[in-house]
Amino acid sequence: MQRHTGRDMWDVEECQSPRMGSVILGVDGGASNTVCVCIPAAMPFNDPLPVLSRTVAGCSNHNSVGEDRARETLERVMSQALLKARRRRSNVCAVCLAVAGVNHPIDQQRMLDWLRDIFPSHVKLFVENDAVAALASGTMGKLHGCVLIAGTGTIAYGFTSDGREARAAGAGPVLGDWGSGYGISAQALTAVVRAYDGRGPETVLTNNMLDFLGLASPDELIGWTYEDQSWARIADLLPVVVESAESGDEVANKILHNSVGELASSVKAVVQRLDLGGEDGKHPFPLVMVGKVLEANKRWDIGKEVIDCVTKNYPGAYPIHPKVEPAVGAALLAWNAIASELDGDIRTVQ
Amino acid sequence: MQRHTGRDMWDVEECQSPRMGSVILGVDGGASNTVCVCIPAAMPFNDPLPVLSRTVAGCSNHNSVGEDRARETLERVMSQALLKARRRRSNVCAVCLAVAGVNHPIDQQRMLDWLRDIFPSHVKLFVENDAVAALASGTMGKLHGCVLIAGTGTIAYGFTSDGREARAAGAGPVLGDWGSGYGISAQALTAVVRAYDGRGPETVLTNNMLDFLGLASPDELIGWTYEDQSWARIADLLPVVVESAESGDEVANKILHNSVGELASSVKAVVQRLDLGGEDGKHPFPLVMVGKVLEANKRWDIGKEVIDCVTKNYPGAYPIHPKVEPAVGAALLAWNAIASELDGDIRTVQ
Repeated sequence: MQRHTGRDMWDVEECQSPRMGSVILGVDGGASNTVCVCIPAAMPFNDPLPVLSRTVAGCSNHNSVGEDRARETLERVMSQALLKARRRRSNVCAVCLAVAGVNHPIDQQRMLDWLRDIFPSHVKLFVENDAVAALASGTMGKLHGCVLIAGTGTIAYGFTSDGREARAAGAGPVLGDWGSGYGISAQALTAVVRAYDGRGPETVLTNNMLDFLGLASPDELIGWTYEDQSWARIADLLPVVVESAESGDEVANKILHNSVGELASSVKAVVQRLDLGGEDGKHPFPLVMVGKVLEANKRWDIGKEVIDCVTKNYPGAYPIHPKVEPAVGAALLAWNAIASELDGDIRTVQ
Repeated sequence: MQRHTGRDMWDVEECQSPRMGSVILGVDGGASNTVCVCIPAAMPFNDPLPVLSRTVAGCSNHNSVGEDRARETLERVMSQALLKARRRRSNVCAVCLAVAGVNHPIDQQRMLDWLRDIFPSHVKLFVENDAVAALASGTMGKLHGCVLIAGTGTIAYGFTSDGREARAAGAGPVLGDWGSGYGISAQALTAVVRAYDGRGPETVLTNNMLDFLGLASPDELIGWTYEDQSWARIADLLPVVVESAESGDEVANKILHNSVGELASSVKAVVQRLDLGGEDGKHPFPLVMVGKVLEANKRWDIGKEVIDCVTKNYPGAYPIHPKVEPAVGAALLAWNAIASELDGDIRTVQ
């Protein structure tokens, strides 16, 4: 397979400082942007972690922007991270790309082939779904346990220590990701329409949503949703739902309780399929919580409610709120895999 | 307000046959096309109705195609209907435009102003939401009772004899039209994903949907829905859901029962707000049923279930399955309004 872009993108290395030690590149490619970090391969586990450089580019989900543009974005963000860290391509000993849109082994293999054309055979390469980087950001690179992401969308993704994996949800709004920021906000808007046309109970969501959006009547919500159907725009209404629930509104509270049930059910499905909790459910495993839906609010803490719901069945689950971003998680995943290999405990993705 | 298009579109009338009697134009502008019929103003109520001509054009919903294109389409479909009926613009005594996207008095007034620029002041003009034409297609033009439309989308729309009106649903999938063809099919696809990832029970919908779509695994549904997010494409899966329910599948049956509840709740909301059933709910009123979701299937008849559900609360509701299309309903609405006026029973829209 030929390299997608010309060699010029990587020529910067020729004018950089001489080899100062091996590095690892970690890339997190999400729905709206792509972040690359460069960390030293021989780093000790300090706090804060010694991130040598961090670069940001646009979306690299091949489903959204096409394969050519996705590759170009990924090459650029990596070459810029090396330039900024004053390292060469020959300093790289491992790369982990964790990108949204990697859903099948075929997506994974295509990206591995293309990476292999950039980096020589001794460089360890890892390609994963972006949810895997989020898990690794909580476990410091170890692929074990379950991550729950709930932002604009939602997904639960888990790994056993011996490399089996499972996921639940993450299929988008058409296919029912009701626990996501989009899902919660869409249900709240629906409740406003239902209260207005007589199908549902009165709710303070009506006034709160109209105030927030600067609209005069629930009629106008139809035009507002048609105007721009991006999921993020709907998901941005989440704080209005949380505030309405905190003020005691029953309709808003019911929506949030339902979303807790949905999110917990995603986690439980993954945990059950991977048997992470053991026979009695008490076996310990990390439950990494990521995304604005799961961040603590004033009183209504969706993340805490989800944890309570999961630990009823799986008391061994211990929640982790990551202190580092997913791109660092991706780098740590590669770091951890190399360290395990050196320890003789080999988990080779390629 | 100036006419949108040039006079050339209407010049055909100059070369047509001389005046042969007054006519009425009825226009139904839906999500995918626009139909215009031309009927004689002085017609007796024969069966079949004497439709002089029928023409079809593209979408005329201003929200979808913009105002300029919507007007051009509406002018064209009307001028062609007159040409085909060998009538002139001066033969027109009434026009009823029933167009999707007319949701506010402001939409209505803008179109009335523009129509008035085409037709002289003695011509009676009516502008309504397309649901109103569907009601009129069942009541032979009388605006009384409730219509339930359930095709790709769904809406309930009702009128009292003295001109009060109300609607429920019709806000699109983001705002929760779950009883629609889109809503039913999206829930079925969601059930397939849930069964696959362990969040929901097994269902024959999985095999039936994958067979129908030519896909190998539920994984591939994510890509399939991203490919083309048009609502009609999802709604076209309705027969798969109905067949699955007819074969005894519990999940599919639950989805259809829920949709019956949703559709009946839209009707009941309208009937209650307009008090169509009177104090004891037994007052008779027409319940016009339109759209492929409500058409009788082999055993699972969604339309019949909805009627049963409505008549439990409102035994006076008498269901009507229209024999004529909505464009004829629009023409009959105008015909009926003129006839009422001549009878001294005036209901003037403009």
